Amino acid sequence: MRADTKILLTEKEMPTVWYNIQAHMPNLPPPPLNPRTGQPVTPEDLLPIFPLELIKQEVSTEPYIEIPEEVQQLYRLFRPTPLFRAHRLEKALDTPARIYYKYEGTSPAGSHKVNTSIPQAFYNKQAGIKRLATETGAGQWGSALSMACSFFGLECTVYMVKVSYQQKPYRRSLMRVFGAEVIPSPSPLTQAGRAVLEQSPDSPGSLGIAISEAVEDAASREDTNYALGSVLNHVCLHQTVIGQEVQAQLAKVDEAADIVIGCCGGGSNFAGISFPFVRDKILKGTKTRIIAVEPAACPTLTKGVYAYDYGDVAKLTPIMPMYTLGHDFMPPGIHAGGLRYHGDSPLVSQLLKDGLIEAVAYPQTQVFEAAVLFARTEGILPAPESSHAIKAAIVEALRCKEAGETKTIVFCLSGHGHFDLSAYDDYLTGKIQDYEYPERLVKEALANLPKVEL
Amino acid sequence: MRADTKILLTEKEMPTVWYNIQAHMPNLPPPPLNPRTGQPVTPEDLLPIFPLELIKQEVSTEPYIEIPEEVQQLYRLFRPTPLFRAHRLEKALDTPARIYYKYEGTSPAGSHKVNTSIPQAFYNKQAGIKRLATETGAGQWGSALSMACSFFGLECTVYMVKVSYQQKPYRRSLMRVFGAEVIPSPSPLTQAGRAVLEQSPDSPGSLGIAISEAVEDAASREDTNYALGSVLNHVCLHQTVIGQEVQAQLAKVDEAADIVIGCCGGGSNFAGISFPFVRDKILKGTKTRIIAVEPAACPTLTKGVYAYDYGDVAKLTPIMPMYTLGHDFMPPGIHAGGLRYHGDSPLVSQLLKDGLIEAVAYPQTQVFEAAVLFARTEGILPAPESSHAIKAAIVEALRCKEAGETKTIVFCLSGHGHFDLSAYDDYLTGKIQDYEYPERLVKEALANLPKVEL
Repeated sequence: MRADTKILLTEKEMPTVWYNIQAHMPNLPPPPLNPRTGQPVTPEDLLPIFPLELIKQEVSTEPYIEIPEEVQQLYRLFRPTPLFRAHRLEKALDTPARIYYKYEGTSPAGSHKVNTSIPQAFYNKQAGIKRLATETGAGQWGSALSMACSFFGLECTVYMVKVSYQQKPYRRSLMRVFGAEVIPSPSPLTQAGRAVLEQSPDSPGSLGIAISEAVEDAASREDTNYALGSVLNHVCLHQTVIGQEVQAQLAKVDEAADIVIGCCGGGSNFAGISFPFVRDKILKGTKTRIIAVEPAACPTLTKGVYAYDYGDVAKLTPIMPMYTLGHDFMPPGIHAGGLRYHGDSPLVSQLLKDGLIEAVAYPQTQVFEAAVLFARTEGILPAPESSHAIKAAIVEALRCKEAGETKTIVFCLSGHGHFDLSAYDDYLTGKIQDYEYPERLVKEALANLPKVEL
Repeated sequence: MRADTKILLTEKEMPTVWYNIQAHMPNLPPPPLNPRTGQPVTPEDLLPIFPLELIKQEVSTEPYIEIPEEVQQLYRLFRPTPLFRAHRLEKALDTPARIYYKYEGTSPAGSHKVNTSIPQAFYNKQAGIKRLATETGAGQWGSALSMACSFFGLECTVYMVKVSYQQKPYRRSLMRVFGAEVIPSPSPLTQAGRAVLEQSPDSPGSLGIAISEAVEDAASREDTNYALGSVLNHVCLHQTVIGQEVQAQLAKVDEAADIVIGCCGGGSNFAGISFPFVRDKILKGTKTRIIAVEPAACPTLTKGVYAYDYGDVAKLTPIMPMYTLGHDFMPPGIHAGGLRYHGDSPLVSQLLKDGLIEAVAYPQTQVFEAAVLFARTEGILPAPESSHAIKAAIVEALRCKEAGETKTIVFCLSGHGHFDLSAYDDYLTGKIQDYEYPERLVKEALANLPKVEL
């Protein structure tokens, strides 16, 4: 009799705290710097755009932070999420490894992003804020925040990169169903947007420009705050419900993870599945290998430098200590839009620097090949971002086969690919290409790092 | 302390049998007739296109039919599905009613259709068949069968109504990810398709034509069978896992359903949630109201006649006893494509005739209004088809409010609307219209019923 396919937790077994890795890291990242003064960012610098509770979480060194009851109730719409044993994928690979995947695509907005959009909307509502502004690229984060705002009766304005706004009408429509206002960026509504439009009226937009518009919007209105879907410490914190659940689920079937895998763009999904396992490495000396997977076309952790850099092109965000390809680096137009970011979470960067985690990069044709095998065996159509984790899990499972080792591999399937089917179409018809490591572009971008010693 | 949001079953609690309502109906439907001879259909008539096991299920009067272990294993990829308590929708309606919904959209293909595509593929594989042919309109059924075929290593050819093939590229792509061949219908590959194309080279296609193409394909190749996603008895049978699970889930929270609701096109989703409750009405005398919900633009059960009629425009299928608007009736282009069918399941029709169930119809603007309220409160974006059930549940909940009654309402949320966002876009921008009951068209179509007494 074979093991269950899904390992489930009851709602009573859902974590009631977030895990804050800042309490246990051997080295904390250096402080973010104010882009105007070059001095460490103060809470006062952040209050015009973030509520105090989130600013506190950003710098907290408490190991566990309680999840407010109202947030827990909303988590229960989709949490705890299932942990699947990939019986059919294992069989297709003919591997002795046991592969598990944590599926976050059962959340109504389709990805793990909802784990942080709900508490962010909650704390803003609590602080008396009426409206949130944010940016979105492919639309995962915009959808998640729109949903959370509709739950709390907050208005929501999403600056959506114009080329995505035009090419991904379904994501745009989903945000509107949730009641959000979706604005193609660059827009004439902000100074930042107008400046770009004057220069190039046909600009397709970029995440950097959209961030500038959303921050300006939030900073200029008393009733409005800004919300970010990755990179920051409080965002990584909220995502740790994922890894905590995985640990409880593995315990139910008497398993210990030998390898934990997450795809990594800004770092929040990777943080979510991995930080509780990093804790056990630090506190209990477990030997789990923890792998961040990124696209070969945007290899921040594997080929970037560790330095102070801006979070956006327009240099409006704090200067952060992180692995970066340079804020001027424009990643090639790969289909995993959520992984097209020049930098990375300072927490994730520090853990890599300290050797507690490792990083690998794969080109997108190999990633799509893995995704299609996964869909045909396990049924779920994975998001291109999440498929990076599938690829790495397959590589490790095949290594086990070669070595005759029975390892336990766990990865996070952070979202479904229901809005990414044109990318699959391109893959199936041979229209997807790989990009060489863009060495020259990275070199040029790295020349423009801010002149701040780390 | 309020009740859980989700009521879950473990995999061990999943039903191991399908429930066959033919064992308990006070009156069985009259037999289907061979369209060429006018005589009752024999197993021999069906063997060229269906495997023997499914033909046996079609006419069985055994109350319970065991679900093969291999089918159960694949069901475990997504079953048991959650039953949600709609706390937030109840609050928005300010109703004393308790509303529950069974969510079938967690299946990898996005709807309940997978409950029957998996056993259909299994029995065909077992019978030595190498390839299945089918038709699909909007694509839910085509996706579900493609997935099941990929699980069993069967080839799959889907004749997709041409206008959907062009307008719903994402559904088409999903089928291709699962390895299916997707052919716009009418196609030059079949006699039926060529006949249409000669008459009108620009034909947008119809479900009737696509059925003819798939049946011809299956009948003309030794290695190929045909598969249907609704209407037939064995399809309704397979869907009863839904209602059986709901009963087990309600029992866990000490609830008894006062009202059970399902949307109804061909009838398989409605059968799935309701047949186990109909059984309890027949055998135990429970007083549950059981409501089938259909679009006002295609009001088969509420305004059709009970008669012998063809299942398709081309008159290739058996003549079936059912509520029908006439096989010549072309329903208006409403967005709930899965409910645009002139006829209905003979089993569902007989139950309505015998007063064991009731039927209502709603126009689509009211249905979309209900869908958006549902998305904004419960988070899940519902399929337009499933939203008919939401509308009916809201109507009943508001009646409870008016009457001050605390009833328990359960409906089936048969699928998500991730591939229907252009319809939501149309609704949000005021581009959706309602259709008057197409009385003249129905009258004309009913004049063409086959001349067979019932």
